[in-house]
Amino acid sequence: MSKQDVELCCSPVMREPLTAERSAELARVFKAIGEPVRLRLLSLIASHAGGEACVCDLTGAFELSGPTISHHLKVLREAGVIEGERRGTWIYYRVRPETLRAVSSVLVPADGAEVATA
Amino acid sequence: MSKQDVELCCSPVMREPLTAERSAELARVFKAIGEPVRLRLLSLIASHAGGEACVCDLTGAFELSGPTISHHLKVLREAGVIEGERRGTWIYYRVRPETLRAVSSVLVPADGAEVATA
Repeated sequence: MSKQDVELCCSPVMREPLTAERSAELARVFKAIGEPVRLRLLSLIASHAGGEACVCDLTGAFELSGPTISHHLKVLREAGVIEGERRGTWIYYRVRPETLRAVSSVLVPADGAEVATA
Repeated sequence: MSKQDVELCCSPVMREPLTAERSAELARVFKAIGEPVRLRLLSLIASHAGGEACVCDLTGAFELSGPTISHHLKVLREAGVIEGERRGTWIYYRVRPETLRAVSSVLVPADGAEVATA
């Protein structure tokens, strides 16, 4: 099992105390997206046509160098937030929805209110 | 309007690109909970009897000093994740569900799948 397939799911943190181990797993994902450029990259990839994007699609949105963008993409990938597939010259990145769903569900407040999906 | 009331809601990052400004607001919250001790503190507070806890309730779960715990609580508070109310000797902390709900909903994947609340 790769590092990024670590079990993140399921019980919300709001219902019972997290163990130290599970906190570390989840915090790794939150830390990865807890950086403005990476969070923007994530939303750019997710909302890009076809649900995937290469560095060539992403650099225009930032005043950052290609290598800097690539570094942030690597952090997101290592945290299991996105995955990349090489096709020809470029690596195409797409979101791993299972990771997002897992960390999102963990934050649902204990009052049981549904998360708006609209 | 206090810093912690900054508008976080509503459209998921998965549907459209985030602006730089909104990314910065959201990343601040994710960064605060992207640390294992803070994430555990959050879950301990949220799942504590009555939905609130003081430092005195929290230190037992960690091999950390009271001031270190207090520092992490301050980071969570400044990010709007928790709020504190002084009563007598102690400050009692509780989760701000509106913040959690906002950042949680932002991560809902674009495939429209509902976040499990069970």
